[in-house]
Amino acid sequence: MRFELTLLGTNSAVPAYGRFPSAQVLNIQEKRYLIDCGEGAQMRMAEYGVPRSRIRQVFISHLHGDHIFGLAGFLSSQSLLGRQGPMDIFSPPGLEAPIRGLLGCGGGLSFPLRFHLVDTGRHQVIFEDKHTRVYSLPLVHRIPASGFLFREKERLRNMQPEKIKAYNIHYRDIPAIKGGADYRLPDGRLVPNEELTLPPAAPRSYAYCSDTAYSEALVPMIRGVDLLYHESTFCEDMAGHAAATGHSTARQAAAIARMAGARRLILGHYSSRYKNLSPFLEEARAVFPDAELGEDGKVFGVEWEGG
Amino acid sequence: MRFELTLLGTNSAVPAYGRFPSAQVLNIQEKRYLIDCGEGAQMRMAEYGVPRSRIRQVFISHLHGDHIFGLAGFLSSQSLLGRQGPMDIFSPPGLEAPIRGLLGCGGGLSFPLRFHLVDTGRHQVIFEDKHTRVYSLPLVHRIPASGFLFREKERLRNMQPEKIKAYNIHYRDIPAIKGGADYRLPDGRLVPNEELTLPPAAPRSYAYCSDTAYSEALVPMIRGVDLLYHESTFCEDMAGHAAATGHSTARQAAAIARMAGARRLILGHYSSRYKNLSPFLEEARAVFPDAELGEDGKVFGVEWEGG
Repeated sequence: MRFELTLLGTNSAVPAYGRFPSAQVLNIQEKRYLIDCGEGAQMRMAEYGVPRSRIRQVFISHLHGDHIFGLAGFLSSQSLLGRQGPMDIFSPPGLEAPIRGLLGCGGGLSFPLRFHLVDTGRHQVIFEDKHTRVYSLPLVHRIPASGFLFREKERLRNMQPEKIKAYNIHYRDIPAIKGGADYRLPDGRLVPNEELTLPPAAPRSYAYCSDTAYSEALVPMIRGVDLLYHESTFCEDMAGHAAATGHSTARQAAAIARMAGARRLILGHYSSRYKNLSPFLEEARAVFPDAELGEDGKVFGVEWEGG
Repeated sequence: MRFELTLLGTNSAVPAYGRFPSAQVLNIQEKRYLIDCGEGAQMRMAEYGVPRSRIRQVFISHLHGDHIFGLAGFLSSQSLLGRQGPMDIFSPPGLEAPIRGLLGCGGGLSFPLRFHLVDTGRHQVIFEDKHTRVYSLPLVHRIPASGFLFREKERLRNMQPEKIKAYNIHYRDIPAIKGGADYRLPDGRLVPNEELTLPPAAPRSYAYCSDTAYSEALVPMIRGVDLLYHESTFCEDMAGHAAATGHSTARQAAAIARMAGARRLILGHYSSRYKNLSPFLEEARAVFPDAELGEDGKVFGVEWEGG
């Protein structure tokens, strides 16, 4: 029951020092979600062993080139590899025409491509499947931008097998009990649910906040998140420039993580002016000790707890 | 006086085994020409130390994705790095709208971008600067495609300094003599040019032929070329498939090189179905011994001879 983030690119606009532009893949119980798709994302997937054909949804935060220039290549390769299943792309408006234009140069795709608009001003559910809900997270950037919160759905409670026998519970009643119902015995007595079941594993969550200026409005939306990727394009020495360009410093990323009570913070989207990343880590850890450097190829997992 | 080709990507459509899609940079006397621009070209330039800002012309063979998906990223990064000088793009029709659309997502460029259409049905000069002429080479592919022949211009002959003194030649007369004129002495005698000058270095040349089916029509256009990059998407075991998809085998590439009297052949644009490339080399060398495997990062130079 994996919940695992693989970073494909952690640099900002101009690739540098072997760091590719923004792209990452989140694996939730073997469903893969692609988050942003900077140039070279498909090469990184091959390099890091990410099964590209398993990706069915792509979430694009905003339309700056370093978050979208790998999309045409990723889609085109999927087509050349014979993909049949549809691909859903969630993004702010304006992406569909140029991507279809570019893909049109080389003929059509082997599979349906569907674009879904994300309202970058609202925090709401934009997608859900069996195990997961995805929420938009309004960001503060130079152009409309949305982060994404991935949260596992609440699971049913776990029936304790020995109680089925002890109380002679019919299998038809089990779904209701797993849903939280108490159980009434033939003699009228009520067995409280807590005696019959164990609580399910806590839903795990991941928030992607890039690109954004420092924004405390994010805090209530990502409260208690297990894993937070918050952009840190600059260190504090460039705080003025960060604010002017709609970006954050490592210290600001850490402040958001602390206020939100995140369990771990991953830094990323580094400016090309920084070759050495250790100042980012030092700056963030002074505010939020559970900060880590995002780097191309790193994998961050969240354990399955309880249940 | 360099004449040097750096391969940035040598795979065909889907990147595989660490081989990136088509892109290369030709350095002729410190002017850099970008030839095709598959995804990741700008990362390869950084990796291989190619000075990106020196590129002023881009030559695109055709509009399949593996030859163009790196263009938006390359241009965008140039803009972010503050480029001022114009960039000229030579390509078959249809590239401008999608590229401008994609770039428009992230705002404009810092420099003028100019598109020039290449008539893929004609062999003619499409560009020239001080030292070089570039010719189109009609290719046979599934969509309109043009290769490119880069040829240094004929140089002036080299004046022998001691003859200036011996014949008391005025400096005003030297340009004409370097251009090939004989020299008339005050007493009316004619000194033949060969006595005054030495021949210039031979113009060097490079031909890029990708993507194309086997086409003998290329032979007279590339006769005697110093360096020939001819696509070899497949080996002979896939000759039927090569013909059906508008591609060549390694043996066919070698046959063209032999017929044209090329000095060296570089193979490339390998299909992702081949991990091991040695069969390409064996097959080509059986027909044309001076064949070599193109590989990402390899550099091929042509010596300056004579002059």
